[in-house]
Amino acid sequence: MNYEYEQASILVQALPYIQRYSGKTVVIKYGGNAMQNDDIKRSVLRDVVLLRFVGMNPVLIHGGGPEISEMMKKVGKEPKFVGGLRVTDAETMEIVEMALSGKTNKSIVSIINTLGGMAVGISGKDANLIVADKYEAEADLGFVGKVKQINPGILESLVHDGYIPVISSVAIGENGESFNVNADHIAGAIAAVLKAAKLIMMTDVKGIFDDKDDPSTIRSVLSIDEAADMIRSGKIDKGMIPKVEACIEALEGGVERTHIIDGTLPHALLMEIFTDTGIGTMIEPNAVSG
Amino acid sequence: MNYEYEQASILVQALPYIQRYSGKTVVIKYGGNAMQNDDIKRSVLRDVVLLRFVGMNPVLIHGGGPEISEMMKKVGKEPKFVGGLRVTDAETMEIVEMALSGKTNKSIVSIINTLGGMAVGISGKDANLIVADKYEAEADLGFVGKVKQINPGILESLVHDGYIPVISSVAIGENGESFNVNADHIAGAIAAVLKAAKLIMMTDVKGIFDDKDDPSTIRSVLSIDEAADMIRSGKIDKGMIPKVEACIEALEGGVERTHIIDGTLPHALLMEIFTDTGIGTMIEPNAVSG
Amino acid sequence: MNYEYEQASILVQALPYIQRYSGKTVVIKYGGNAMQNDDIKRSVLRDVVLLRFVGMNPVLIHGGGPEISEMMKKVGKEPKFVGGLRVTDAETMEIVEMALSGKTNKSIVSIINTLGGMAVGISGKDANLIVADKYEAEADLGFVGKVKQINPGILESLVHDGYIPVISSVAIGENGESFNVNADHIAGAIAAVLKAAKLIMMTDVKGIFDDKDDPSTIRSVLSIDEAADMIRSGKIDKGMIPKVEACIEALEGGVERTHIIDGTLPHALLMEIFTDTGIGTMIEPNAVSG
Amino acid sequence: MNYEYEQASILVQALPYIQRYSGKTVVIKYGGNAMQNDDIKRSVLRDVVLLRFVGMNPVLIHGGGPEISEMMKKVGKEPKFVGGLRVTDAETMEIVEMALSGKTNKSIVSIINTLGGMAVGISGKDANLIVADKYEAEADLGFVGKVKQINPGILESLVHDGYIPVISSVAIGENGESFNVNADHIAGAIAAVLKAAKLIMMTDVKGIFDDKDDPSTIRSVLSIDEAADMIRSGKIDKGMIPKVEACIEALEGGVERTHIIDGTLPHALLMEIFTDTGIGTMIEPNAVSG
Amino acid sequence: MNYEYEQASILVQALPYIQRYSGKTVVIKYGGNAMQNDDIKRSVLRDVVLLRFVGMNPVLIHGGGPEISEMMKKVGKEPKFVGGLRVTDAETMEIVEMALSGKTNKSIVSIINTLGGMAVGISGKDANLIVADKYEAEADLGFVGKVKQINPGILESLVHDGYIPVISSVAIGENGESFNVNADHIAGAIAAVLKAAKLIMMTDVKGIFDDKDDPSTIRSVLSIDEAADMIRSGKIDKGMIPKVEACIEALEGGVERTHIIDGTLPHALLMEIFTDTGIGTMIEPNAVSG
Amino acid sequence: MNYEYEQASILVQALPYIQRYSGKTVVIKYGGNAMQNDDIKRSVLRDVVLLRFVGMNPVLIHGGGPEISEMMKKVGKEPKFVGGLRVTDAETMEIVEMALSGKTNKSIVSIINTLGGMAVGISGKDANLIVADKYEAEADLGFVGKVKQINPGILESLVHDGYIPVISSVAIGENGESFNVNADHIAGAIAAVLKAAKLIMMTDVKGIFDDKDDPSTIRSVLSIDEAADMIRSGKIDKGMIPKVEACIEALEGGVERTHIIDGTLPHALLMEIFTDTGIGTMIEPNAVSG
Repeated sequence: MNYEYEQASILVQALPYIQRYSGKTVVIKYGGNAMQNDDIKRSVLRDVVLLRFVGMNPVLIHGGGPEISEMMKKVGKEPKFVGGLRVTDAETMEIVEMALSGKTNKSIVSIINTLGGMAVGISGKDANLIVADKYEAEADLGFVGKVKQINPGILESLVHDGYIPVISSVAIGENGESFNVNADHIAGAIAAVLKAAKLIMMTDVKGIFDDKDDPSTIRSVLSIDEAADMIRSGKIDKGMIPKVEACIEALEGGVERTHIIDGTLPHALLMEIFTDTGIGTMIEPNAVSG
Repeated sequence: MNYEYEQASILVQALPYIQRYSGKTVVIKYGGNAMQNDDIKRSVLRDVVLLRFVGMNPVLIHGGGPEISEMMKKVGKEPKFVGGLRVTDAETMEIVEMALSGKTNKSIVSIINTLGGMAVGISGKDANLIVADKYEAEADLGFVGKVKQINPGILESLVHDGYIPVISSVAIGENGESFNVNADHIAGAIAAVLKAAKLIMMTDVKGIFDDKDDPSTIRSVLSIDEAADMIRSGKIDKGMIPKVEACIEALEGGVERTHIIDGTLPHALLMEIFTDTGIGTMIEPNAVSG
Repeated sequence: MNYEYEQASILVQALPYIQRYSGKTVVIKYGGNAMQNDDIKRSVLRDVVLLRFVGMNPVLIHGGGPEISEMMKKVGKEPKFVGGLRVTDAETMEIVEMALSGKTNKSIVSIINTLGGMAVGISGKDANLIVADKYEAEADLGFVGKVKQINPGILESLVHDGYIPVISSVAIGENGESFNVNADHIAGAIAAVLKAAKLIMMTDVKGIFDDKDDPSTIRSVLSIDEAADMIRSGKIDKGMIPKVEACIEALEGGVERTHIIDGTLPHALLMEIFTDTGIGTMIEPNAVSG
Repeated sequence: MNYEYEQASILVQALPYIQRYSGKTVVIKYGGNAMQNDDIKRSVLRDVVLLRFVGMNPVLIHGGGPEISEMMKKVGKEPKFVGGLRVTDAETMEIVEMALSGKTNKSIVSIINTLGGMAVGISGKDANLIVADKYEAEADLGFVGKVKQINPGILESLVHDGYIPVISSVAIGENGESFNVNADHIAGAIAAVLKAAKLIMMTDVKGIFDDKDDPSTIRSVLSIDEAADMIRSGKIDKGMIPKVEACIEALEGGVERTHIIDGTLPHALLMEIFTDTGIGTMIEPNAVSG
Repeated sequence: MNYEYEQASILVQALPYIQRYSGKTVVIKYGGNAMQNDDIKRSVLRDVVLLRFVGMNPVLIHGGGPEISEMMKKVGKEPKFVGGLRVTDAETMEIVEMALSGKTNKSIVSIINTLGGMAVGISGKDANLIVADKYEAEADLGFVGKVKQINPGILESLVHDGYIPVISSVAIGENGESFNVNADHIAGAIAAVLKAAKLIMMTDVKGIFDDKDDPSTIRSVLSIDEAADMIRSGKIDKGMIPKVEACIEALEGGVERTHIIDGTLPHALLMEIFTDTGIGTMIEPNAVSG
Repeated sequence: MNYEYEQASILVQALPYIQRYSGKTVVIKYGGNAMQNDDIKRSVLRDVVLLRFVGMNPVLIHGGGPEISEMMKKVGKEPKFVGGLRVTDAETMEIVEMALSGKTNKSIVSIINTLGGMAVGISGKDANLIVADKYEAEADLGFVGKVKQINPGILESLVHDGYIPVISSVAIGENGESFNVNADHIAGAIAAVLKAAKLIMMTDVKGIFDDKDDPSTIRSVLSIDEAADMIRSGKIDKGMIPKVEACIEALEGGVERTHIIDGTLPHALLMEIFTDTGIGTMIEPNAVSG
């Protein structure tokens, strides 16, 4: 009986958090190793199903670099990157789309559905959810796009009817062409349009560090200004930049709280939502440094 | 972090139970010491609020013997019982109604509301929820009634609009008079009319025992037939009889499962709903003995 | 046939009034002798049922001084008043709540329901309808409160689903404690929040008199300013003050018309609503003296 | 004050009748002198508006023999009747339609609307409400039709949105041609399809008499069988036949009560609905003779 | 097969126009020879049914000068006109109303309904759709009115429930009297209140000409200012004036586009809506001369 | 003007067909060369958008053999067929899913959306739309499945909210694994569950021929029995078998009409729906041979 009492007692401790987010939208950028390792993947998605059943409206956005690269290798095509961005010619775009919308997306949907949730996987092309323009860089990156407009109608339909939307980071251009768009930026834009209560970015690191080589310097709370400063000063760099930018965009669009967490930590998502201390780094509108 | 992980992991273990009862009605006969002791009361009602927030529709029915007796004493009136039933003259009925609908009921409502739930307390007279006839016994028991009809419209309205109904065991007669009706029987009748998924009877004992003096002989599962036999053979007696009768009535009316639990055990309600083993005694339509 | 013709012809005379208030909310502070005498009580509540059936939405608020005092006496407790307000210690508050929410409230509900209406009796604690603060006076009055906030959700639910709400004047404090609040003030606050078409205060006098000892000096219409002046000058005093204050608060909150009538006059309510001359005193936003 | 008290008291006497018919459909065949005399017309239609405002759903059907005859005369056309039915050639049909749908119908609508109701006048051609076949008689009657099908969709729309439908007795044929159909039969058919609570036929006589020349032999209640017998035996004859047939058809189609009343009696409609004794003759499914 | 291919291919060419007006309201002033000739009438109304089935909400307004004159002649009454307006004494008004609301209106309804649409014919008196004042001119024109207020509730009800409203140009006065109102002006006022996407005026001429005797000078597009200028300069005169005024009123009330077309051209309506070039003259808010 | 008249006139000829299928569901198995050739693809999908805008609810199902084979080739994997069915090992299944759900599906969606429709592309895994079992054959075919259950909830949601569902022929197994299921069979099963008015199978041949080498022997109508006979006798063979089986299954499930048409004929879809003669072969419940 002791153990069961313990269980019940923990459920009760979760109550205030359940109350706070009841009926609220939580946008989750799902990615990194949490999406590669089968056991962690299953564990993370079970957490997502739980969020839905305790009354939240989770919306998942995913990219899928490794699946793309693996597919590129299979067809004997060499990946090319300029400034961290994948050069995406027409043939590459086709592979990107197949890997993201055909493989990664449906694999996530399938796991959620076997866990008792009801997911519907779409891309940004469906119902014109994500309209993109060509991303203009010094080099011609091909079908790399940037978000031009979010049409959230289909998300509202799906959420209203009880489904968990799972969105691949492929957008539609004015002429129906596909664009490969950074999933972090998509997550930020969708969170802003949906006026989400939370945007959670899953990464493979514990959060943002003052000294990026020293995890003990993790910042648990950052204000928008502090985060922007750390990008300018280079303390935040590489793949962390679009994540932090997405958080800032979301906050400026009305999202209440944004979080950067290590998705590979077991139950990172739940710990973030259901405990006071949280984990990782939270970026808030007017946060004081922590 | 370890502790928080433990918490999250237990939430996840609750998921299958949350899924099973999502959107289902759970009728709870609230009573016994779980309603007398302030700490337990608060704990039980927090559990009820949790049920609501994870998607169930709890409906509470309560009586309140001790409050009635206390009030009787205050006004200098001697309680009189015949065959376990309170002889209820007009003056007593007035005290019963004030104690149940004015004190116990509102006190439950008030605690639920401070815990973040949204309770509405009514009696069986409101919207003609519980229509009763005089209970005919050898002795004239006065305003003791038995359920004649349940008009569940007001419960459906309240549940639909997100409220937790809390119902005192006072019924209305054909001429608007008040009747004191056994709360166990009301709970059974309401569970049947609402086609509840569960009826949970809170008592002060651990369940039904084969040897009523030996808690180690607790039966974890009983079939309707077995339960009826145990009443006939006297193994179930006194205050346990209406509880078991209410369970049988509910089961015959289409309720899926009924439970008799010890409400004073911390989180008895959650342990019953969120674990496989459950606690107390479950009475089921075609259960095999356990 | 003559008599029946007379009946029909009177119904037709009521038509313009029925049209004017069709679908409108009418808040009624029910009290005084109209609530003590059984025959008048039945008559008044039949009038209320009629209002509902001809298309209005009546909402009743009641206190219940005599019931409280009677109960106090029964338990041998001496009522204490300071400045016209009942000193309400914890034990008194318990009696107040039982008398109002358990006895008076349910008795009103029960009569309405036998007359073919469908009433639901609640207190200000249910669904946090009336949140109160401690009323600060020179003397410590204990659990005497003043309205802090009205949460009308439950009233809207009940009215939408066809019920007549009956509200006892017990409010909830921040910590779930009960407060005894003046029912007149509650009626004014609820009328304002609901943007009622009418607020009707039932008293035992014919209205407001220029010379308070001379009923022939009754004022049939008063402007807000005139009413306020009469309070300042002492022409309005004692128990009439909160009634007039409630009218003023309601008018300032957007209520169209407020009335002070003698509830013991047979069919006072209907005469007020269904005739041009009305009865009693009407306080209006920009009325000219009458 | 006395007079106003009387008024209020009569309103209260109407309450049980208002309750009984609240939300129910009352089909009224409007005709006879009650439609010719301007004062009575206004009085009858005010009664109809009252029915709507106290919660019933009145539906009016009218013919208009005098208006047709007057128009025939104006254009110098001789009315011709065979067996009591107007021989209706194409030119006559045009005049019938103009008189009924263009004049009588709109005049009724216009009076209701100035009295505060909201009427919409349609014919049986609108939304294919009344589909008719040619009425086959020995002589060729031209465009005289009989009801083939009622499509009540438009009535349900209008009633749902708060309008009082006013229907002229012109029906549509399979090829869009107009048919002149007996308004009594239309009223019976519509009452049956709408499952009305009441069908009221307005005539110029007090009801059905055992001796048709002696009003003192009026029958206040008739069973279907008795009514059918009286037609066979010739006690009911001429213009009364279609009225009684319509009542029988309506009763067989599920209407609760049907009435034949003298529409020229002031407030006949209200006296019928709002008093126990009623007026005129009621034909009921299983009535015993009265 | 060739012909069927041609058919299909033309349907596809209509697609962009169908998309553009899907769910939009199109107000059509129906009149002129398009309403007199039986074949053209049938053809025009089939076009209207088509509009409804491809997703638009057509609303028809009609007058009916020839029917009125014919009826006047039949009853031996001499039509009298002052300044192009019919002098309408009480007897004439009765004839106007019968001809328009009883004959023309129902004839349109009947054709639409046999073509598979579902029309409901009403006049401006029904549900107080068109409230009018007496039109004040130098001579007393009797019951000639001008639009005072449009109450579009009944149109919204009918359109919502799938019906095609057909409206005769008879309005209701403050006291329920009938007014004969110019149908062009009614069409403009209704289009404005409904915020229609299009107002289409059917006439017997091809459009507006620079030289009114030379159809080759037709203006395919006019701005509001140009149209107003042409009225002032006399280029637009006689019966064209109210049509152009109605267009201007509609445009100023928010209608997107207005058109004056020759209704006798086969499928003029469809050609106007489903082709780029359109036919007749379009008057637009800020059009450049064409 | 002549040409535009022709256009309008053809629209009108389509009206009876538009009326007949207004609000009805039309399930289209999209495939063959109509899906390979870019111009035909665009043309077919424009026809689909048209169906939606004239009031039908099109639902598309597609497979995509050529895309699969092309992808197999790119990754250097040899396609293997047994009895016409693709042997589908885990690696092949991954390629199938990417090609169908990631490439073909999104390409269809993207074209529809640029043509003004609003498509949402899903697979049978989303919302558990198509649950499949392993297809048991003599040889082990790997992840080839057969339909076990259709859960149409997501289709109803999408259609209700105005979207055109586009479904790839990938199903979900009990354990979340992917199954490659014949798209013809899926189309038949979905049409049956949705009680579609029509099921249209697009192929590359004109229909079913009595002599399969002689197109002049095409059968324009077949009964279920005749179709079944032709399968047994071998007149229908190879890839035509599942198409005809799907038609039979759909008809037995309540679909009104099923069609096998040559999707490469320009506007084949529209010609089938909008003309009387239709094209291809129609299989009907009780058709007589044609």
